[in-house]
Amino acid sequence: MQVEDLQTGKTRWEPYDQLLIATGAIPIRFPLPGWDARGVFELTTLQSGIAVRTALDREKPRSAVIVGGGYIGLEMAENFRARGLEVSLVEKTPQVMATLDPDMAALIAAGVEQAGVKLYREESLQAIEAEQGKVKAVVTDRRTLPADLVILGLGVRPNSALAARAGIPVGPTGGIQVNERMQTRENGVWAAGNCAETFHLVSGRPFFIALGTVANKQGRVAGINIGGGSARFPGVVGTAVLKVFDYEVARTGLQAREIESLGLIAAEARIESRTRAGYYPGTGPIVVKLFAEKGSGRLLGGQIVGREGSAKRIDMIATALHAGLRVEEMINLDLGYSPPFSPAWDPVLIALRQLLPLV
Amino acid sequence: MQVEDLQTGKTRWEPYDQLLIATGAIPIRFPLPGWDARGVFELTTLQSGIAVRTALDREKPRSAVIVGGGYIGLEMAENFRARGLEVSLVEKTPQVMATLDPDMAALIAAGVEQAGVKLYREESLQAIEAEQGKVKAVVTDRRTLPADLVILGLGVRPNSALAARAGIPVGPTGGIQVNERMQTRENGVWAAGNCAETFHLVSGRPFFIALGTVANKQGRVAGINIGGGSARFPGVVGTAVLKVFDYEVARTGLQAREIESLGLIAAEARIESRTRAGYYPGTGPIVVKLFAEKGSGRLLGGQIVGREGSAKRIDMIATALHAGLRVEEMINLDLGYSPPFSPAWDPVLIALRQLLPLV
Repeated sequence: MQVEDLQTGKTRWEPYDQLLIATGAIPIRFPLPGWDARGVFELTTLQSGIAVRTALDREKPRSAVIVGGGYIGLEMAENFRARGLEVSLVEKTPQVMATLDPDMAALIAAGVEQAGVKLYREESLQAIEAEQGKVKAVVTDRRTLPADLVILGLGVRPNSALAARAGIPVGPTGGIQVNERMQTRENGVWAAGNCAETFHLVSGRPFFIALGTVANKQGRVAGINIGGGSARFPGVVGTAVLKVFDYEVARTGLQAREIESLGLIAAEARIESRTRAGYYPGTGPIVVKLFAEKGSGRLLGGQIVGREGSAKRIDMIATALHAGLRVEEMINLDLGYSPPFSPAWDPVLIALRQLLPLV
Repeated sequence: MQVEDLQTGKTRWEPYDQLLIATGAIPIRFPLPGWDARGVFELTTLQSGIAVRTALDREKPRSAVIVGGGYIGLEMAENFRARGLEVSLVEKTPQVMATLDPDMAALIAAGVEQAGVKLYREESLQAIEAEQGKVKAVVTDRRTLPADLVILGLGVRPNSALAARAGIPVGPTGGIQVNERMQTRENGVWAAGNCAETFHLVSGRPFFIALGTVANKQGRVAGINIGGGSARFPGVVGTAVLKVFDYEVARTGLQAREIESLGLIAAEARIESRTRAGYYPGTGPIVVKLFAEKGSGRLLGGQIVGREGSAKRIDMIATALHAGLRVEEMINLDLGYSPPFSPAWDPVLIALRQLLPLV
């Protein structure tokens, strides 16, 4: 392969026996006046995080506008509020957290607004105004929001351009196509991490998700196989967790719109319960939503929004998805109960009980 | 059935179509001088809990001796320390928490001692000394411990005497034998809750465990079936969780001595990790121990001791036991990762990775 030394500008041909492409993801950008103003940040690397913190420390901004209501946007909103900034969040769709159903995302939005974030949904970014090269405001299609600091959290896409230029097949998700061993379609060339596609074990379709834990697992498998060992990465079930202010958010499997687009017929249950026994100090509300396929009863997905102790409950739902469990096989799951951790019936079991007669 | 009215002392015969025995568990007792002294308590009912709290409020005891290092004993130790009492705990075996392996129980013991509890292991209760009917000290085979208040937490056994007297078969665990529908061997007679046996889905043997969540599940199934519906309770995998001081404790499946007594050949892995990303505020240590069967690779059990956020990780291990998953099927489980909740590799996955080459 041809390699360019970025310090000298010289190029050379580098022979390889095995080649691993691990070019990661790159932020989604679009042509936007003012995007290069001082005080406008993306959060994609450790360096970009350090740059934001340095700006906070040195320039003491009083107002921040965040564009994008996904993980990065919500996490930044929390941390800016913790540092006392006025925070506005602009999201072009009707909901934050597109990976949750609208009804569950509405719970998050309410929590975010309650924490003092001004939320502007269904507004799209038009321009960033700057003065002497320094950001001054964010302009949406409906208003101008003054801003000392701007975060663009518009998502990422697989950085698969190098592979594509080399003629290595890229899948419908934009990620490099790999098999369970992390081999591309090109002999001796491997790909792992956020530049690569993965497989969704519930939908049975290629899938792209830019999460560190998935990248890590793919990297381990690629490394073992390149080193002469034998390992497989069958795929993911779409698990993700998020802390935002006092709320914990989790999802796994298929959400409503994925179920619909796959043409599956599903039943759903949504329950409200408590994170701990009702009388135990620190107990808080938790909402659990589950989907299962009608007829087969196979679990399809779950979403959780609640207080402390909610998020990692998604792991048992994810494990059930990996195992292909049916609702009927799950209603008596022997989950841990003790008042500091759960009601006698874990909220996930309560949701499963509601779901059982519907599938 | 013959029924005695406890207020009038009169007995009568009561006809039934369906009879449910739900007599619960009773505390294990043995002949002991002084056990009926004032200030000596068992904790088996809501009333007994209220009695202890009333004694704390009214008599302001300064020292408590707890006999028994199981769930009740450890939970009471925590709460007495929180109220400022001097607390001693006497346990006749070499370890607290018999449902964990000795190495994991040692972690709990260290935490309990660090919290100021005086722990006396391998000491057996000989007598309770009283003065004018009020408890004064607990006498073990090695010392006399002054006590203003004594808790006897010696465990419980199924209250199956009524069933046994009626000729209804009681199993080797002492619990009333029931099938998956909660029917006893006697036509029209059902049993559920802590008086009934259950089935251990990992060992494949009858099992007795006096936990509220299991009793609840059995009661639901019995109720549905008695009402003409159809429900099954296949059994448990032996899950239990406990908070004691700053530690969270969890176990499921088979522990070392159960594996040995069943004649299974198992591999084990024990790892130390963190509850959250290493740099995230509130991160703490967590120790995870897992067993899997050599050859088949089938997961057999797991134990967890760690700080906040540790215990409910047992639920995904319990779910995997229900599904009969093999270690190889689990190492890429798509568990929730975000810095507030987990390192990029969940501690359970790290343990599974260690276990894989050993099975």
